Amino acid sequence: MEVTKKNFKEVLKKLPSILNGASFIAIDGEFTGLHHEVRPSPYDTPEERYDKLRKGSMDFLLMQFGMCVFKYEKQKSRYVVHPFNFYVFPHPVSNRKPDHRFLCQSSSIDFLTSFNFDFNKVFRDGIPYLTHAEKESMKEHVREKHVLFEQQAMNSEQSPGFISPMAKKPVEIPAEQKDFIDAVCKKVDDFVNNSEEATLKLEPCTGFQRKLTFQSVKARHASGLMLTTKAGENKGDRYIEVAKATDEDKRNMLKKKLESDLDDVEDAAGFSKVIDLISSTGKPVVGHNIMLDVMHVLHQFSCQLPETLSEFKELVSCVFPKLLDTKVMAGTQPFKDQIPFTGLCELERTLKCAPFTQPECVTAPGYPTYSSETDKSHEAGYDAFITGTCFATMANYLGTFLDPPRGRVTPTCNLIEPFHNKMSLFRVQDLPYINLTGPDLTPSRDHVFHITFPSEWRTHDIQNLFAPFSTVFINWIDNSSAFVCLNNRDESKLIMKNIEQGPDHRVQTYKDYRRSLHNATPDSSPMVAAQPSTSDTGVVTPSEAAPFRTPRGLKRTHDSSEVRGHDPEVAELTAAAAKKQKSMDPNAPVFVSRRSVSPVEVSSTSPQTVKEADQQTIKSLEADKDSAGTEMKDGKKLFDEPTSW
Amino acid sequence: MEVTKKNFKEVLKKLPSILNGASFIAIDGEFTGLHHEVRPSPYDTPEERYDKLRKGSMDFLLMQFGMCVFKYEKQKSRYVVHPFNFYVFPHPVSNRKPDHRFLCQSSSIDFLTSFNFDFNKVFRDGIPYLTHAEKESMKEHVREKHVLFEQQAMNSEQSPGFISPMAKKPVEIPAEQKDFIDAVCKKVDDFVNNSEEATLKLEPCTGFQRKLTFQSVKARHASGLMLTTKAGENKGDRYIEVAKATDEDKRNMLKKKLESDLDDVEDAAGFSKVIDLISSTGKPVVGHNIMLDVMHVLHQFSCQLPETLSEFKELVSCVFPKLLDTKVMAGTQPFKDQIPFTGLCELERTLKCAPFTQPECVTAPGYPTYSSETDKSHEAGYDAFITGTCFATMANYLGTFLDPPRGRVTPTCNLIEPFHNKMSLFRVQDLPYINLTGPDLTPSRDHVFHITFPSEWRTHDIQNLFAPFSTVFINWIDNSSAFVCLNNRDESKLIMKNIEQGPDHRVQTYKDYRRSLHNATPDSSPMVAAQPSTSDTGVVTPSEAAPFRTPRGLKRTHDSSEVRGHDPEVAELTAAAAKKQKSMDPNAPVFVSRRSVSPVEVSSTSPQTVKEADQQTIKSLEADKDSAGTEMKDGKKLFDEPTSW
Repeated sequence: MEVTKKNFKEVLKKLPSILNGASFIAIDGEFTGLHHEVRPSPYDTPEERYDKLRKGSMDFLLMQFGMCVFKYEKQKSRYVVHPFNFYVFPHPVSNRKPDHRFLCQSSSIDFLTSFNFDFNKVFRDGIPYLTHAEKESMKEHVREKHVLFEQQAMNSEQSPGFISPMAKKPVEIPAEQKDFIDAVCKKVDDFVNNSEEATLKLEPCTGFQRKLTFQSVKARHASGLMLTTKAGENKGDRYIEVAKATDEDKRNMLKKKLESDLDDVEDAAGFSKVIDLISSTGKPVVGHNIMLDVMHVLHQFSCQLPETLSEFKELVSCVFPKLLDTKVMAGTQPFKDQIPFTGLCELERTLKCAPFTQPECVTAPGYPTYSSETDKSHEAGYDAFITGTCFATMANYLGTFLDPPRGRVTPTCNLIEPFHNKMSLFRVQDLPYINLTGPDLTPSRDHVFHITFPSEWRTHDIQNLFAPFSTVFINWIDNSSAFVCLNNRDESKLIMKNIEQGPDHRVQTYKDYRRSLHNATPDSSPMVAAQPSTSDTGVVTPSEAAPFRTPRGLKRTHDSSEVRGHDPEVAELTAAAAKKQKSMDPNAPVFVSRRSVSPVEVSSTSPQTVKEADQQTIKSLEADKDSAGTEMKDGKKLFDEPTSW
Repeated sequence: MEVTKKNFKEVLKKLPSILNGASFIAIDGEFTGLHHEVRPSPYDTPEERYDKLRKGSMDFLLMQFGMCVFKYEKQKSRYVVHPFNFYVFPHPVSNRKPDHRFLCQSSSIDFLTSFNFDFNKVFRDGIPYLTHAEKESMKEHVREKHVLFEQQAMNSEQSPGFISPMAKKPVEIPAEQKDFIDAVCKKVDDFVNNSEEATLKLEPCTGFQRKLTFQSVKARHASGLMLTTKAGENKGDRYIEVAKATDEDKRNMLKKKLESDLDDVEDAAGFSKVIDLISSTGKPVVGHNIMLDVMHVLHQFSCQLPETLSEFKELVSCVFPKLLDTKVMAGTQPFKDQIPFTGLCELERTLKCAPFTQPECVTAPGYPTYSSETDKSHEAGYDAFITGTCFATMANYLGTFLDPPRGRVTPTCNLIEPFHNKMSLFRVQDLPYINLTGPDLTPSRDHVFHITFPSEWRTHDIQNLFAPFSTVFINWIDNSSAFVCLNNRDESKLIMKNIEQGPDHRVQTYKDYRRSLHNATPDSSPMVAAQPSTSDTGVVTPSEAAPFRTPRGLKRTHDSSEVRGHDPEVAELTAAAAKKQKSMDPNAPVFVSRRSVSPVEVSSTSPQTVKEADQQTIKSLEADKDSAGTEMKDGKKLFDEPTSW
C-alpha cells in the first residue's frame, strides 16, 4: 500500500494491531545517495566502517521506507502479508521546524530514476517526521509561546502593543500608513459601539499593517476584544478578525490554540511514530544488507547517532532488539554453498529453486499484491516483501536439517537465533558482519600491507615494487596511499624483510598501520583520507578485481582449522547440517566447524582468523543489488575492460 | 520551449543564429536550495557576501535554466521572443565523469513543488554538462586509453593478455571456468579455421568470463582477430564479438573508436555549450537579482569560482561582458519612486500600469507562448520571459525622459549603460549592488554595533542593554553574537561611551569588528559562525523587521547631500529626468543628484555613504519573489506575529 501524507493518519490508526500480530517485519529503505567523500574500504574495521557511514552517508535522505508485515496463519500454513510503501520528506512545516539540507548522489538518483522512482511524489506528498529531540523542542516552544501570549492577552498594561519580545515600545506609525490605521480604528470603534455582530472581518493587508493594527486597536480597547490573524481566500492573503471576547473567552481560546498547536507538533512527528511502533512491538525486524537502513532510520526518525560503534550497538539493541540480515544468512552455512550470489535479486532467484521451498504468502485483503512477477525492484515496499519471503524461505530450510524435518521455522526459533543481531559489512572481504550483541571477529590481515607513495604513482609503480612476489591486489585509499594484499598468504612474512623501502614510499604491515592510526587518534575510528583518487583519475582499483583471483573452494579447507569459535546454541543444527549435507552429496566434505553453520560469537580475548568469508566476496562484488546498480555506476569498474583489442 | 536531453542536440544547432540575432538575452535559474550553514546578513560586505554564497550556496544544483532571446523587429516595432526552458542534470555518463553530490534544501524543494516543478523530468531527462576542466580531463583520458589500446592491439608480445595496467601477468583460470573457456576457445578456433563469416558473436557472459576470454583467445591468436565487447539484447547483458581483422583494420577501428569516444565527451559537455554560446555573442544578459544565477552558471558549466571577489568580477566581465539586473534598475531612480516592490512578480504587475508602457512581444513561430496570464511562476523559462519584458519596459521608460521622448531604448544605449554590470545584493539594506567593473560603494555603518554574549541570551537581554537608547534592530549572527542597529543614527556616538560592557558581553563598533576580523583572517572574507540560531531557537530576528521602522521618504533628503559620486555619462538623462519629474508632479522635489538616476561608480579613495538604498529594503523584504516563497518558509518570519491576543 502506498502511504503518503494524504492517507498517513488513516494508516497509522490501523498499524498497531497489524504490527502486534506480526511474526516478523521486513523493512527496506531507498536513499538519495550512498556515500560522500569517505569511501568504505574492504579493510575497514567495524568501528571504521560505522564511522565512515555515520560521517559520510547520513547527509543523504531516506525518502522511501518499505515495510512488509508477515503474519503466520497456522490453520492455512501460510503467511498473510501487509505491505506498505511509505514516502517520507522533511517538509519545513513551521518556523520551529528545522529547514533540512540533504545530499543527493547523481548516480543514485540516476539509478532510481531508471526504475521509475517518483521523486515528485516524495517531495509533494512525503510524510513529515521529527526526531524525538526535535519534537520535544517544538512542544517546548509552543508552551513558551502560549505563556507569553496569555500574559500579553490578559495583562494589557504590561505590553500594550504587538506581541513580540522585542516590541517593548510600540512601533511608530509611518506617515503613509496613518490613513490606513485611522480607518481601521474607526471601523473597530464602530463595531464595538454600534454593532450587534460578534465578529468583524478587516480587509486583507500586509504583515506590517497587521502589526500596526494589533497595537493601535489594543491601545484603544485594552480589553473586551480578541484579534486573530486568519488566512484569506486568495493565496498569501492574511486578514485580522476582531471578536468581542471576555478574558474568560480569551483564556478558553488560548487553551484551545495550545492544544491545537501541540496536535500540530504531533502531526509533524508523522512517520517517526511508525518507527516507534515497530520498536514497541519488539518483533523480529528483517532486512537485506541492513546496516545503512538501520543507521538512516535511527538518525532520521529517532535520535542523533552516537559517536562510537559500541554505543551504536547499544542503541540498536534497544530500538530493534531482534534484527536479522538476510545477506548475513545467505553468506553463511548451510546457505553459502547453495547461494552463489547474495544480492537481493539473485538471492530471490536462487531461493525459488530446490533445495529451497518458498512458503505460501498471500496479501491481506485490500492491499495491492506484490509478486516477483511484477518487478518493482528498488521500490522499498517491494524490496521489503522480497526480503521477507527470502527470510521465511531460508528459515524453513533450516528446519529441513532437523530430524524429523520441521516445515516451518519461526524467527524466534533457536535455529535462527545465531543469526540474530548480525549486520552485513558490505564489501568487507574477511569479516562478514558486525555483531550487535557482542564483540566483533578479528580477521587476520597479516597478508595486507599499507603503502604511502608520491601522488604521481600509478598502479604499475606499486606492482613493480611487489614484482618479486606473486600476484598482489591493490586497494587505493587516496592518491598517495593504498592497501596491498598478497594473493599468496605464505609470502606474508617475507615482505617486510625483502621489500624495497624508499625515500618517497613506505611499506608497513597492516598491524603497524592500525597501530599508528590508533596512536594518532585516540578515537580508534580514524577517517581514511577524504579523496579517493580512483574515480577521479580513472586508475584501475585492482582490489575490486581481487576476488576473481581467489577461486571459490580454495579456502574451504581453512574453515575448520582456522576458525576456533564455539557456539553451543547451534550444536543441534550443526550435527543436523553435517548429516544432511552428507546425505545430499556423498563427495562433499563434512562440515565440522560451527562457523560453517552460524556466525559464531567469539570472545575478544581470542582473536580469530576468519578466512572463509573471502568466498562470498565474488558474489557481493559481481552480483550484489547495489554493485549491480548504484555502486557500479559510481565511476568504478571492476576492471578496466577494453571494448576491443 | 522545453529542452531536455531528448531534443537538446536539435535545439543546440539552432541556437547560434537565434543568439546572434538577439537584442538581449534574459536568463533565470532554479536551484535545489539557497544557502547552507552560513546565512547572508544585511551587514555583509560585498566580499563577505560573495564568500558566503561561494562556500554556502554552490553545493546546491542549478537544475533548470530559463533563457529568453529578445530580438527587436524594427519594422513592426516589437520584440520577437525565443523562450527556452532547459532541464539540466549531472548524469554520471562514464567512469571518467565525476559522480556529483549536490545539496537540497527542504524549503526550496517544497516551494518549487508547490509550483508543480517536475523533478522527475530533471532527473530523468536533464541535459548533462561538464566544466571546461572536466571536459579536458575526460578527453585526455580518452586519448591516453587510445594509445594504450593501440599498443596492446598492435604489439601482442608486450602484453599478451587482458588490457589493463595491472594485468602484467595473465589471470589464472579458476577450475570452475575451465570448461567455459575451453568451449569458447574451440568455437573461436573453428571460426578462424573453418568459417567464412567475418564475425562471430559469443554468448553473453560475466565480466570476469569476458576477461578470461580476452586473454585466452589472444594467447591463441596473436593477430588477425579483433575482439569487441558489445551490449546484448537484455538489460545488462554483454557479449564479445570476434571479428577477423588485419592490423590495418584494427588501426582504423581504433581510430574510429577514438573519434567516437571524443564525440561522446562533447555530448557529455552538453548544456555547458549553451553558456559558451551566450558568452561568445557578447550580447547583453539580463536577469532579476542575478548574482546567484551568475555564480551557479559559472560554477556548474564553466569553471571553479575564484576565491576572491575581485577575481570573480574579472571572470564575470569576461564571460558576460554586459550584465543587467532588473532588481538593481527597479530599486534605483527614476524607477524607485514608481515601483514600490522590486520582487519579480510585483515588478511585473507595476510595469503593466502607467507611467510604464510594455513593448509588444510576440513569440517566435513554433515556440509555445508565455504570457503573464498563464502564470508559470518559478519555471525558469517563464521567469526569464518576465524579466526580459520588465527590462524592455523599464528601458523604454528611460526614453520618455528625453526631449523629444524616444519610444524604444536599446540595452546598449547610453541611457542604460549606468546599469551595466551591477548585481543586486539581496537583503543588504544599505548597499544596493555589487559593481562588477569598479570598486564597490562603502556605506556608513557607524550606527551598527557588534555584540558578543553568552548563548543563553535572548533578544530581550540585548534590548535591555540598549534600553537607554531609542529603538534598536537586532540581527543575529549566531547564538552568541549579533549586530545591533540604531534606529536613531544621531545616537551612534553615544553608544560606546554609555553602553554597559560586562564580563560576559562585549559591544564594539562595526568598524572595530571588521578590523578585528581583518586582523584575524588576512582573507578579508571571514566566515560568519556557522550555525545561525534564529531558525533553531525561534528567536525573533528584528533586523528583518527593521525596514518597517524606516518610513519611506524619510531618507529622501539625504540623497543629494550624502552621495557625492559623479557620472558624466548620465548628465543628459539627469537633466531630462529632472525636467520630466517636475512636469509630471509640480510638488515633487527636483532630482539633482546623479545617484537618483543611476548607480554611480565612485572611486575607492572617496568612500561614500549611501543611505537611500534603505528605502528599497521594505520592498525586498516584503515583496521579493524569494522572500515571498523560499526565504519566507525558511523558519524566519519577518516578526513573530501572534495569531491572536
